[in-house]
Amino acid sequence: MAIHSINQLLLGSVSAGSEVTIRGWVRSRRDSKAGISFLHVHDGTCFNPLQAVVPSELDNYEEEVLKLCAGCSVVVTGTLVESEGKGQAYEIQATGVDVVGWVDDPETYPVAKKRHTFEYLRTVAHLRPRTNAFGAITRVRTTLSSAIHRYFHEREFNWINTPILTSSDCEGAGEMFRVSTLDMVNPPKTDKGAIDYSKDFFGQETFLTVSGQLNVEAYCLAMSKVYTFGPTFRAENSHTSRHLAEFWMVEPEIAFADLDDDADLAEDFLKYLFKAVLNERSDDMAFFAERINKEAITRLQNVIDNQFVRMDYTEAVTILQNCGKKFEYPVAWGVDLQSEHERFLAEEYVGAPVIIMNYPKDIKAFYMRLNDDNKTVAAMDVLAPGIGEIIGGSQREDRLDVMDARIDATFSGSGEAHKEALWWYRDLRRYGSVPHAGFGLGFERLLNYITGMENVRDAIPFPRTPGNAPF
Amino acid sequence: MAIHSINQLLLGSVSAGSEVTIRGWVRSRRDSKAGISFLHVHDGTCFNPLQAVVPSELDNYEEEVLKLCAGCSVVVTGTLVESEGKGQAYEIQATGVDVVGWVDDPETYPVAKKRHTFEYLRTVAHLRPRTNAFGAITRVRTTLSSAIHRYFHEREFNWINTPILTSSDCEGAGEMFRVSTLDMVNPPKTDKGAIDYSKDFFGQETFLTVSGQLNVEAYCLAMSKVYTFGPTFRAENSHTSRHLAEFWMVEPEIAFADLDDDADLAEDFLKYLFKAVLNERSDDMAFFAERINKEAITRLQNVIDNQFVRMDYTEAVTILQNCGKKFEYPVAWGVDLQSEHERFLAEEYVGAPVIIMNYPKDIKAFYMRLNDDNKTVAAMDVLAPGIGEIIGGSQREDRLDVMDARIDATFSGSGEAHKEALWWYRDLRRYGSVPHAGFGLGFERLLNYITGMENVRDAIPFPRTPGNAPF
Repeated sequence: MAIHSINQLLLGSVSAGSEVTIRGWVRSRRDSKAGISFLHVHDGTCFNPLQAVVPSELDNYEEEVLKLCAGCSVVVTGTLVESEGKGQAYEIQATGVDVVGWVDDPETYPVAKKRHTFEYLRTVAHLRPRTNAFGAITRVRTTLSSAIHRYFHEREFNWINTPILTSSDCEGAGEMFRVSTLDMVNPPKTDKGAIDYSKDFFGQETFLTVSGQLNVEAYCLAMSKVYTFGPTFRAENSHTSRHLAEFWMVEPEIAFADLDDDADLAEDFLKYLFKAVLNERSDDMAFFAERINKEAITRLQNVIDNQFVRMDYTEAVTILQNCGKKFEYPVAWGVDLQSEHERFLAEEYVGAPVIIMNYPKDIKAFYMRLNDDNKTVAAMDVLAPGIGEIIGGSQREDRLDVMDARIDATFSGSGEAHKEALWWYRDLRRYGSVPHAGFGLGFERLLNYITGMENVRDAIPFPRTPGNAPF
Repeated sequence: MAIHSINQLLLGSVSAGSEVTIRGWVRSRRDSKAGISFLHVHDGTCFNPLQAVVPSELDNYEEEVLKLCAGCSVVVTGTLVESEGKGQAYEIQATGVDVVGWVDDPETYPVAKKRHTFEYLRTVAHLRPRTNAFGAITRVRTTLSSAIHRYFHEREFNWINTPILTSSDCEGAGEMFRVSTLDMVNPPKTDKGAIDYSKDFFGQETFLTVSGQLNVEAYCLAMSKVYTFGPTFRAENSHTSRHLAEFWMVEPEIAFADLDDDADLAEDFLKYLFKAVLNERSDDMAFFAERINKEAITRLQNVIDNQFVRMDYTEAVTILQNCGKKFEYPVAWGVDLQSEHERFLAEEYVGAPVIIMNYPKDIKAFYMRLNDDNKTVAAMDVLAPGIGEIIGGSQREDRLDVMDARIDATFSGSGEAHKEALWWYRDLRRYGSVPHAGFGLGFERLLNYITGMENVRDAIPFPRTPGNAPF
């Protein structure tokens, strides 16, 4: 007997009347007075469960079927028929129900069929993918990942797995975790009493990366179009709904490109991804729009349908200063925009995604290209209604002398040491340097934007936050 | 003027006679006595460079074109014409050559056009993708990654990003790196003088993962078919050509599956990947077969064309004992097979991939399913001619009582503590447990097998090994 996924059956890839077998977990059981049981079975392949209509004539009806509860694993065999109930195209007239695994003590099954808070479900992260919401998040996450790889692969980008372990702490994107195999109780020390990292595994102090950007630039200047898509880390004591200690980031980098090309890529990329999710996971997206955030679908459609507005930072400051709105944080040229400013611009002023470009150099990293005004750098942030910043990027400084001066200014007093540590990164400006640009996209924040979920801890299978690395 | 990748032009996607622009890096320049220069330009999109024929009539011919050397970045504009030379279908009759970036001191350019050893190129890992070999490795790596994601996505697998940071050290796959933000010089200590990890970032001692398997099983028992594809870590002081401290691993996991299903998946998966690389990167594979290992293509074809032979461990031991061959390590039932044994079986005895199944329980992990003989577990290794073990997998123990006994036996004296730490993993056997199975595939070893490269340090962009985490 052919085994099918519930997704294939609900999509109609098997004709009614066929004998089929499905395998999955019971979501619910209902018994009719007429001596028939209705099992809803899910197998993770789509949002909807498949209903199995189980007649009492089955040998194990009394002994087993009537004891089934949410979470039990079963193999159901029978005839696929068109469903007369509404909401479902097909159901199975069961001729056999094999129970594969029972649930110990259904009363205490941690994800029994009822409403659970997302906070509670984080404490049972190993079981939460069995719920409607986390099954849907998992499928959308996969669809989004798949669309990311497909987008880049079709456009001749190479996926570069930049290193997680790094001896470089000069990027400055955030606090770093130290990685070591030294004995913590009696670490080797130098004559001066400092830790002797030359005795550590890598012969020097080593950290978890905060970004693959610097490394991926080396590949950009050989392969033309590249991207990273991997885990990155921040050792920041942030307890907000937007911060994880471990999260995934996408970082494309393109050669022979300036900030406008970078903005073009960001806009095209986001629109492609949103279309892919709406097309490929309409079942899960309908759930998010119904239960999580009623704007979940419409705001993606809004991004797809509208041209992103591009605006200089300087213009944005003027708009914010003259808009008559009272902000918690005052706006002044030279100060970074706050979330309230970003959301005003995207949601109220424009009503569509906005790309703010050319920020003051003093609030941006040394590797961003200095503009001719000598005051701003070719940086951009993409702001989306409903979330604020979703992408941050820049054209990179491709002139060695200008970058060296910026390193000296940024790391005042230790410029030489930083330049020495960055010898290889500076080499890229010595040998066939070209204008190039890229951006970073936080994958879990994007997933939250798509699903309407509010906490990034619910966008990654096993979230890591200060004080929490269970499972 | 339309900008094209060199790959598109060489594939004939633009008709001869078209005006085109390419952007890339000079690989070589040759000047004819007739006052014409030939530039070979690469842009990373395919193995071959495109030849630009540059007439001396260009304004910057004397001043710039005649000074171009390997590594300079250029934008070349001209007419695409069919090439009269052999080996190339097309070339460009240049009407303009813009020099974008020069090479500082061509005499010392680290990857100037000559033969370099792979050892040397590891010291300039930021520039080695500009060489023929590493450009090819990069493209094959991307093609292989892409095929992996496509294979799984088309078969309804979900990609699960299992955590890199873990507080669990009980899997036992290898030595682990500690991750901490504690002050190494004055770490907080408990009354007994031990390090007080309750004060560390995650409130407990934390490590880098050695495998995503345990975590991905939780998702398998909700989504049916899942896989991981991400970085994993080993803090082992191994200086061999097959070991990295940081490497990527692919780990599929399937529900309602036994060891035979697992073997089916491994065989189908490898054949799919090898076909994809041979089809999509024939240019790079031709290079590997010509320059790196003359078997590079034929041995992949051999894997594709042959059915994998399945053999019990017990049978393999008998064959090895009776084959008349002298091995360095003696063979006895209950002892793990060595590389020399594995290669004999795959290369000499069978001449095709072999799957060895059902190993003695005492040499395998606690989570592998105990067979009815009570002596072996449902584990498998896939051995390929020319490399030996390429995949290791197992059916997982799905019976809680049996697994608990195995944990007690494996971690003698600390079984209770391990069971407590594995509470969530054991939960999976309490709630709708099903037979399930999976395997692990080291991505860099697979890439070496495909390309014929011999050191895994050359299969990852920036390799991390004991004493080495530069860049």
